[in-house]
Amino acid sequence: MVRRDGRAPDQLRPITIEIGAAPYAEGSALIAYGNTRVLCTATIEDGVPAWMRGQQGGWVTAEYAMLPRATLQRSRRERNGPSGRTQEIQRLIGRALRAAIDLHAIGERTITIDCDVLQADGGTRTASISGGYVALALAVDHLVRSGAVETYPTLTPLAAVSVGMIQDTLLLDLCYEEDSQADLDCNVVMNINSAFVEVQATAERTPVSRAQLDALLDLAARGIQQILATQAAALATVLPNNAMSSSASP
Amino acid sequence: MVRRDGRAPDQLRPITIEIGAAPYAEGSALIAYGNTRVLCTATIEDGVPAWMRGQQGGWVTAEYAMLPRATLQRSRRERNGPSGRTQEIQRLIGRALRAAIDLHAIGERTITIDCDVLQADGGTRTASISGGYVALALAVDHLVRSGAVETYPTLTPLAAVSVGMIQDTLLLDLCYEEDSQADLDCNVVMNINSAFVEVQATAERTPVSRAQLDALLDLAARGIQQILATQAAALATVLPNNAMSSSASP
Amino acid sequence: MVRRDGRAPDQLRPITIEIGAAPYAEGSALIAYGNTRVLCTATIEDGVPAWMRGQQGGWVTAEYAMLPRATLQRSRRERNGPSGRTQEIQRLIGRALRAAIDLHAIGERTITIDCDVLQADGGTRTASISGGYVALALAVDHLVRSGAVETYPTLTPLAAVSVGMIQDTLLLDLCYEEDSQADLDCNVVMNINSAFVEVQATAERTPVSRAQLDALLDLAARGIQQILATQAAALATVLPNNAMSSSASP
Amino acid sequence: MVRRDGRAPDQLRPITIEIGAAPYAEGSALIAYGNTRVLCTATIEDGVPAWMRGQQGGWVTAEYAMLPRATLQRSRRERNGPSGRTQEIQRLIGRALRAAIDLHAIGERTITIDCDVLQADGGTRTASISGGYVALALAVDHLVRSGAVETYPTLTPLAAVSVGMIQDTLLLDLCYEEDSQADLDCNVVMNINSAFVEVQATAERTPVSRAQLDALLDLAARGIQQILATQAAALATVLPNNAMSSSASP
Amino acid sequence: MVRRDGRAPDQLRPITIEIGAAPYAEGSALIAYGNTRVLCTATIEDGVPAWMRGQQGGWVTAEYAMLPRATLQRSRRERNGPSGRTQEIQRLIGRALRAAIDLHAIGERTITIDCDVLQADGGTRTASISGGYVALALAVDHLVRSGAVETYPTLTPLAAVSVGMIQDTLLLDLCYEEDSQADLDCNVVMNINSAFVEVQATAERTPVSRAQLDALLDLAARGIQQILATQAAALATVLPNNAMSSSASP
Amino acid sequence: MVRRDGRAPDQLRPITIEIGAAPYAEGSALIAYGNTRVLCTATIEDGVPAWMRGQQGGWVTAEYAMLPRATLQRSRRERNGPSGRTQEIQRLIGRALRAAIDLHAIGERTITIDCDVLQADGGTRTASISGGYVALALAVDHLVRSGAVETYPTLTPLAAVSVGMIQDTLLLDLCYEEDSQADLDCNVVMNINSAFVEVQATAERTPVSRAQLDALLDLAARGIQQILATQAAALATVLPNNAMSSSASP
Repeated sequence: MVRRDGRAPDQLRPITIEIGAAPYAEGSALIAYGNTRVLCTATIEDGVPAWMRGQQGGWVTAEYAMLPRATLQRSRRERNGPSGRTQEIQRLIGRALRAAIDLHAIGERTITIDCDVLQADGGTRTASISGGYVALALAVDHLVRSGAVETYPTLTPLAAVSVGMIQDTLLLDLCYEEDSQADLDCNVVMNINSAFVEVQATAERTPVSRAQLDALLDLAARGIQQILATQAAALATVLPNNAMSSSASP
Repeated sequence: MVRRDGRAPDQLRPITIEIGAAPYAEGSALIAYGNTRVLCTATIEDGVPAWMRGQQGGWVTAEYAMLPRATLQRSRRERNGPSGRTQEIQRLIGRALRAAIDLHAIGERTITIDCDVLQADGGTRTASISGGYVALALAVDHLVRSGAVETYPTLTPLAAVSVGMIQDTLLLDLCYEEDSQADLDCNVVMNINSAFVEVQATAERTPVSRAQLDALLDLAARGIQQILATQAAALATVLPNNAMSSSASP
Repeated sequence: MVRRDGRAPDQLRPITIEIGAAPYAEGSALIAYGNTRVLCTATIEDGVPAWMRGQQGGWVTAEYAMLPRATLQRSRRERNGPSGRTQEIQRLIGRALRAAIDLHAIGERTITIDCDVLQADGGTRTASISGGYVALALAVDHLVRSGAVETYPTLTPLAAVSVGMIQDTLLLDLCYEEDSQADLDCNVVMNINSAFVEVQATAERTPVSRAQLDALLDLAARGIQQILATQAAALATVLPNNAMSSSASP
Repeated sequence: MVRRDGRAPDQLRPITIEIGAAPYAEGSALIAYGNTRVLCTATIEDGVPAWMRGQQGGWVTAEYAMLPRATLQRSRRERNGPSGRTQEIQRLIGRALRAAIDLHAIGERTITIDCDVLQADGGTRTASISGGYVALALAVDHLVRSGAVETYPTLTPLAAVSVGMIQDTLLLDLCYEEDSQADLDCNVVMNINSAFVEVQATAERTPVSRAQLDALLDLAARGIQQILATQAAALATVLPNNAMSSSASP
Repeated sequence: MVRRDGRAPDQLRPITIEIGAAPYAEGSALIAYGNTRVLCTATIEDGVPAWMRGQQGGWVTAEYAMLPRATLQRSRRERNGPSGRTQEIQRLIGRALRAAIDLHAIGERTITIDCDVLQADGGTRTASISGGYVALALAVDHLVRSGAVETYPTLTPLAAVSVGMIQDTLLLDLCYEEDSQADLDCNVVMNINSAFVEVQATAERTPVSRAQLDALLDLAARGIQQILATQAAALATVLPNNAMSSSASP
Repeated sequence: MVRRDGRAPDQLRPITIEIGAAPYAEGSALIAYGNTRVLCTATIEDGVPAWMRGQQGGWVTAEYAMLPRATLQRSRRERNGPSGRTQEIQRLIGRALRAAIDLHAIGERTITIDCDVLQADGGTRTASISGGYVALALAVDHLVRSGAVETYPTLTPLAAVSVGMIQDTLLLDLCYEEDSQADLDCNVVMNINSAFVEVQATAERTPVSRAQLDALLDLAARGIQQILATQAAALATVLPNNAMSSSASP
């Protein structure tokens, strides 16, 4: 099967990462998965949420939003509180990114990852995680370079991708149109050690057999390796060698 | 390893289901997974959400809440809007239960499943899904017996359970204390045909290998078969034979 | 006149009280006035509201809610703030229960009484007060047994009941159907010393003469004596003698 | 006992009513109970709340608010929803005024009584009811004079006053300082036929005996007769004779 | 051209100021611009907003609201947060009044100016500023007389008026009907030294030429001189001479 | 005086306009005033606000927001309602743009201009107006090209710029640092016919004389002419000649 945009079923869209797209932030990256574009920024602030105080560690949290015309139809700003969908996504992003960092090593600081979707063509939450990781790594580098933290906190690079099934065909990195037709939609977050950080499989239409689920997880794992390589290449242009090597945990 | 409450790692807590615990509802069940107790009610109302009108089918949605003293410490009522956690859970319950029913067969009606946690000792979302299915089946039976719908809508029984990993030991049906210590927490919804409706695996502490994830899915599948049997036994006491057989889709 | 459920006009519905229905709470009681069932829990927390600090005394407050299917028709959860009716009821419950206890004797603590209506057939606010008193007495006992407070704080038992008038007939303890037809509805809170703590008489349809109001207050007083006896019997099964005697203020 | 402002225990404060204080409203009155001043306006709008439609009758509702410096200390505007106290008061005002009018006779219209407290020295809710009645009577007259309604709807004049007990002394029409010291506070709404529309007795400190309650109701009844006379005198200056006589129900 | 109410185009409505209309406030004035009547009160409270602490100065802020029947049609109370219009107006009032006072001279205090519109016939924001200045001056005097501040803080009297253009005619102090027909609406705040504190010109219908804008500013300046004189006359009845002279900055 | 960034006092920052930056919108422009960058999109939707229905015309409205890291310090998302500042700005943008278009000529449609600030260095509201005009003109062109509207609606190009005064020096197009030091801040919207659409002058520190105000308006007028030329050049690359000529109303 050839997909509408000419891709093979197991092929990613073009993934690009522009470092420093929001110059006032401590770290930022504009990531694109095809037509999906997300501006990810990292903000470092002193202090941690009240329930964490005194635990000698830091915190990473995330917020997610879409510009009104990121979508084909205008969507309303969420000015009366974030929707359930938004909260679910930003909780997922924050949880995933906390698994990428040694929170004790950044001190009593909070790093907030803002993921603002400029254009949405499916996969905005997975692009947010992959781009959010880059912004986070840049902020950690900023902590070290500014002298706030002495030794490089351990980072374990991770990335995310969606997989899905349309009429028994397994697809990698679904665009919006594919996503809306999929029988099952599955978002996978995996780190550089091939360990699963998060799996969220939802049968919107047809529940899947164990064999199908296994094949989807294999497909996601292959896609994530490519995205990890793109992240590393982008970061290599700005980070010192020792930061990069500290990122590659055994 | 023997667990705090004497269970084997692959053993469920005692599961009980009391039919009709909320007599004014069109369907209701009080389900217990050990000390976790959830009152599930089903309400049938005419009409569907605005975006579904004219599609000749019905809708199933869910709401979830905890009584303030369901927990060891009092928790606040969510009177300024449901929290992100609550919204995530009730979206999960609704999505799972929609996969259990032929929405076209119930006409332009909405069935609302309310899951109110009377006592919380871990696994409230999985108990809500399993108990919610029973309330849903009773409401569907009510639709038929009241003459609102002529033929029995097809139901595909499903149930849910949590699995997790503590220091390399895999556990079935975690209680609250186990849940708070787990490296990875995974909720699985599976139907009577052994197909996965939902998998949500979250590495709170340690990402897991593919082999570990596979073993967790196996463990969940075995637990869910037992819960499905408990549901069937409870429903058999009140539903006619043809309702039960229609529930068992091939 | 014989009432729909066979009661005489001056007859209460069967009143039952189940102690300890919410095992995690410091005190709890499931009270039933016929088909009306309310789960009352008491929570003890250190500290008092800001405006009370430094006054060397404690505080008692109450919250009230109904499960969506406590009623014949589903009612919405109050997730955008409690309704005016809910606030009025929970203010009444809190005010009444504060009149039952020597607030200075519990130290700078807040006892929150949560009244959650599982089933509603009229009289939910009066059942909440009567059941709330039991939960409060159990929490006070918990304070003493746990050593937090040395001597038994004085408690003055109190209970509540509704009375009303339908076409010149005076009725005790109205069920929902009677309540909705009543010309006048009156809720009375009275303590063991036959003193009035609260009288709220509202002529929904027909204002009443002084003679009618007098007769209603007499009727309420007789009903409350019976409810006080039911409370005492329930508490006697769990409280030590000295707690009970301290409750009977001269 | 002589009260701080020189009044006898059973004496009202000076009660004055200024008709037409808000010239754009269909009816308005600025009522004073001593230093307490409330601007009451009546607004007539077509239509009734959704749940009343098609019942061939009208509706009367009320809103209540205080200007920030009506009080000795500035109080915040209720811009995040009315407080429980405010809702309780405005529900009371609306309920009382509905008992003063034949709702069927005004057609499918809603009359909104706005009670805005310009200065608050105790008794704002009772002054609101007494002043609200005047505004309502003026609005009903406006309905007739404008030709919207042909025959004068029956009005049954009513008024309200507070009574209370301080250390066994019974007091009529409490000012703020007295109110804050009272053991028991009781608001009474009574109509021109000496029938009770609403009694709300609350023992803030000391529950009262039946004999004390009886004496308080007697005291309130006497005060209300005087307020009814003041209302009638004020309305007589502007209403035609037939309106006034229609107000005096047999 | 003669205006509907007989005024010449460059003529103000009758401006009156009643000092002390809200006796509990530290300063108050009921100002009328014709039928527009605004009750302005000043409240002095210790402390300043968090972002100002430690700067050794005070703060002046304003709130604005309309009674529901200030207008010909009833307007809703803003109980779900102030509207955009309300916020814009109260920000304008606060900003203008801060320009009238030496904030350092009042110490770490906040003066809140509440402007409650009793009757609205156009020009409510300009009347609020002019009346708010009087309330502010009285509150400053209160600070000195009560000994809280030793020397008179410098006040620079200011006032505001609207000007507009209807079909090439320039008008001073527009009433509601004129305002709703104006091609351009312009609010001007000017101080006793003829300096502009705020100019807000908005072409609702027709943009204006530079020559027209110049003529409007001239017209406003002449009107404001008259309002400043009315303020001074009102304040002279209650303020000591030295307060008045301190108000007249060179 | 030379400014921090080397500009002369009467010199604009580099102004650039990128057409089509949000490809899903009916019109879009990314406008930069130096480091200030605003993404402006135009959305066409059928229908008008309720209060405009049946008037045979359309409506233009605007929303404004900043990304959290548009600023040097992270600012919070406005998820509990827009702030007063935000509402003031978006009301200004909408009002100004409505003055640029013949609303009758677009039929019963609403055009929403979303102005999302990607980077904020002062002048975000004026950049939003100038960029919003470009998005609006593109949306109007879309209406014509798609056949929804037959003849080109008349557009009157307009643009906006800020001027200010720091210690008697008048400055054009203030950056953030200048803006925070200015004694007076003035935003001017002017159209291609040199007519004023909006003037908002606010003396944050020092009120200004009439002569100074006159000079500021002259300065703004010169800057706006340059911005109008930049808009025209950008639009000329995509709009047909007749659209351009229709834009230039006499």
